[in-house]
Amino acid sequence: MSNQKIVEGDYVLLYLSQRKTYLVKVEAGKSFHTHKGFIKFDNLIGKDYGCSIVSSLGFEFFVLKPLLHDYIIKSVRKTQITYPKDIALIVMFSGIGPGSRIVEAGTGTGALATALAHYIKPKGKVYSYEIREEFQKTAEKNLIRAGLIDFVELKAKDITAGIDEADVDAVILDLATPWLVIPHAYTALKPCGTLVSFSPTIDQVVKTVEALKENSFLDIETVECLIRGMQVERGKTRPQTLMTAHTGYITTARKMTRNAI
Amino acid sequence: MSNQKIVEGDYVLLYLSQRKTYLVKVEAGKSFHTHKGFIKFDNLIGKDYGCSIVSSLGFEFFVLKPLLHDYIIKSVRKTQITYPKDIALIVMFSGIGPGSRIVEAGTGTGALATALAHYIKPKGKVYSYEIREEFQKTAEKNLIRAGLIDFVELKAKDITAGIDEADVDAVILDLATPWLVIPHAYTALKPCGTLVSFSPTIDQVVKTVEALKENSFLDIETVECLIRGMQVERGKTRPQTLMTAHTGYITTARKMTRNAI
Amino acid sequence: MSNQKIVEGDYVLLYLSQRKTYLVKVEAGKSFHTHKGFIKFDNLIGKDYGCSIVSSLGFEFFVLKPLLHDYIIKSVRKTQITYPKDIALIVMFSGIGPGSRIVEAGTGTGALATALAHYIKPKGKVYSYEIREEFQKTAEKNLIRAGLIDFVELKAKDITAGIDEADVDAVILDLATPWLVIPHAYTALKPCGTLVSFSPTIDQVVKTVEALKENSFLDIETVECLIRGMQVERGKTRPQTLMTAHTGYITTARKMTRNAI
Amino acid sequence: MSNQKIVEGDYVLLYLSQRKTYLVKVEAGKSFHTHKGFIKFDNLIGKDYGCSIVSSLGFEFFVLKPLLHDYIIKSVRKTQITYPKDIALIVMFSGIGPGSRIVEAGTGTGALATALAHYIKPKGKVYSYEIREEFQKTAEKNLIRAGLIDFVELKAKDITAGIDEADVDAVILDLATPWLVIPHAYTALKPCGTLVSFSPTIDQVVKTVEALKENSFLDIETVECLIRGMQVERGKTRPQTLMTAHTGYITTARKMTRNAI
Repeated sequence: MSNQKIVEGDYVLLYLSQRKTYLVKVEAGKSFHTHKGFIKFDNLIGKDYGCSIVSSLGFEFFVLKPLLHDYIIKSVRKTQITYPKDIALIVMFSGIGPGSRIVEAGTGTGALATALAHYIKPKGKVYSYEIREEFQKTAEKNLIRAGLIDFVELKAKDITAGIDEADVDAVILDLATPWLVIPHAYTALKPCGTLVSFSPTIDQVVKTVEALKENSFLDIETVECLIRGMQVERGKTRPQTLMTAHTGYITTARKMTRNAI
Repeated sequence: MSNQKIVEGDYVLLYLSQRKTYLVKVEAGKSFHTHKGFIKFDNLIGKDYGCSIVSSLGFEFFVLKPLLHDYIIKSVRKTQITYPKDIALIVMFSGIGPGSRIVEAGTGTGALATALAHYIKPKGKVYSYEIREEFQKTAEKNLIRAGLIDFVELKAKDITAGIDEADVDAVILDLATPWLVIPHAYTALKPCGTLVSFSPTIDQVVKTVEALKENSFLDIETVECLIRGMQVERGKTRPQTLMTAHTGYITTARKMTRNAI
Repeated sequence: MSNQKIVEGDYVLLYLSQRKTYLVKVEAGKSFHTHKGFIKFDNLIGKDYGCSIVSSLGFEFFVLKPLLHDYIIKSVRKTQITYPKDIALIVMFSGIGPGSRIVEAGTGTGALATALAHYIKPKGKVYSYEIREEFQKTAEKNLIRAGLIDFVELKAKDITAGIDEADVDAVILDLATPWLVIPHAYTALKPCGTLVSFSPTIDQVVKTVEALKENSFLDIETVECLIRGMQVERGKTRPQTLMTAHTGYITTARKMTRNAI
Repeated sequence: MSNQKIVEGDYVLLYLSQRKTYLVKVEAGKSFHTHKGFIKFDNLIGKDYGCSIVSSLGFEFFVLKPLLHDYIIKSVRKTQITYPKDIALIVMFSGIGPGSRIVEAGTGTGALATALAHYIKPKGKVYSYEIREEFQKTAEKNLIRAGLIDFVELKAKDITAGIDEADVDAVILDLATPWLVIPHAYTALKPCGTLVSFSPTIDQVVKTVEALKENSFLDIETVECLIRGMQVERGKTRPQTLMTAHTGYITTARKMTRNAI
């Protein structure tokens, strides 16, 4: 069972408000500085998660134990478009769970790899391909922070040139040219294995679906997911004013032994 | 690793089209009858998943290995409103994973318990409360079929009267009066544990959020999720004509040691 | 001012429920038959709009004066995809109003022409092109029923071959190949006139936008509109379960004297 | 027919980009200054609408003839939530057109009154109620600018205290407490007249629908409208990243002579 007292070395989520949260490492003798004052980590060590602490300027910060989606959000950079909602659907539609072996590309900042590792641990494995070296270092850092690096093999390889693994449960793609990976994914997947591809543009989706049809995949579906927040307050409840209108389309399919007649 | 050859006793998903699929148990010497002819199970045993078979009337059925969301969809009855998309988000926002201990209510037909068990196995546990006996039998059947019964304890108890477990990672509610469970959930949760509630009406959401605020929960958020399918075909791509407009609102929160100042 | 007493020859909307309404012509001495009994028109003549009448089988029907959107909905056939919501946006974005001169194609069943005529009467004019003769008769019937035929000129011509009119305020397109009409629309429009095109597929939108850019149109925008109904009842309020996910994309633009530098 | 040459006193829309437009009055001998340089109005007078002009700093501005929705958008202040999409639906569902007599409240900055006046001119009339004096002046200015002041009577009265007019075609409400106006609206409407109410919160909608049911209104419906923009470019087409998630709910109903049995 996960620990419930804050110990040195833990990552904690300092919560000032829904929009102001900080993912920081607890280090004895050190402090964390914000525009609302600083917090001494020594005052946190030994306390229960869920407690609050007052900063040097008198502001109350709650101390949360980071969840998977906190690690995802905090590992996302602006160029990144795979949000928790999309990751949640990718995980569900791929059918993976504890013990699954998964090929993933591109690694990017590691947000998707983090989530996959979380769900397949401790016996499964994520093989994550990435050709841009600078991303791999960021991903590694994010995976270490989330305590999930042991379940991911970061590979500095171009997945459009081929996949090393065989008999995997799922291939999950979030890269610019997913259609170039489909034949390799077919070879790497176990019978009836699943493919999930995430793409922002219609054109990518069309090319990917065509490649899936040509390569004996079945049950091909493309969806998009819209999340709308609610402002909940008795007598004033209403949807929020702004929302994300688009992140990307999720295409799913399953490998058959051959095409339909 | 999961088997890749079809063996007697397996549940398989017979796929005629995206709208016509059948979840059936492979039994030697028996057949499965549809309006498109029958299929002899003996012709399936020993074959690879992902193969196809032709029915007595000449129609091709593909043989898929059921994934989690197939079990969910097939366990859903018309009165049930927790869809795979909502379950995916509930799983993500709850932060659970392999090893988590979860309290859930009400069991219903077991769709949500099936998903939770899938993600927390083999060392975690789902404690699922239900007061309507007729549902429990259906849920048990569905959990057995999905091979996940060992990870769920079905409890014939009224969760609004109290929760037996302590120090659980998450409490997940899909019942008519979630606000009555909030004080019990607070007691049952470990520090910083998560609560997720799924409700179809605004009024339920307002009452639940009020109860959460009164009971020292923080980071309270309510969202709804819309999924829209795409018809993908070069030169004719467009969103589908109809979609589900509403299933329910998902409210999430985390247990703090006390209310904000 | 429009009449408020029901007179012979009026079209009335008989309302049994939100899903069961009938647009019928009041004819002295005749009856209207439904599965809920018949109604004698003589019992309606002379009464106020908004009254109710009881059928021979004891069911209450309310008698409504048809509004524009009633005529639109009742003129729509299954193959038709321009709904009131889209027509409302087309009217708004085109900038038309009383006195406007508009070219429209294709006429179809006349739903869009009906709306345009309603808003530009009594001094404006709608020139509506259609090459399929069978549609023109339906459209004429629908326009007569709505009392708007005098403001529409139905033209049995192929608009992709050219537009006869000049100096029109707007060109509004709802046909399979809008991009073929763009050069003709440019010629027909007055300076700074507006073009609005309605298309169900992405591919049509891309081709239309490209043609607009090549033909000195500016302020080009494409949107889609989603309408979601609410079930409103104290303590049980929630969005409806199903909704239309897609009708089409609306593209708007304005004619410039030349392309941007 | 509207003029096509730019003349002194015209309002023109100077268009630098989709996000940078200016609604200005053409005044001989004067200039318009922007951060991209200034434009001399004398260089515009006599030119065709749809032309472009280069500023003192070398930037090209297109000169558009403002349409109804330009006037609406430019009259909107931040606190205002009635957008062109909602106004378009309100106009459609109310059934109004040239010649209609309409009661409207509250006037606010006059955006909705501007649209109603545009569609009911030249023989119809909008009676617009507002109790906040400072808004009335803004509304008057906006209506004068749009050339529609003659078709609107601005009334400094509290509509919850009563409506002076009788036999109107429609009552259109965009104020905080629409339910208080429903009995007065019933009295003011002609038989089968329409009521449309626009409200941001669920609670307002519930109270309004209850008042409508108690006051012999029928065909009561509540909808919300979502508009999503598309980024259209061959090979890169996709929905826009952000959208407005909520403006308000639109509730419509028609006056009957009495309640259903």
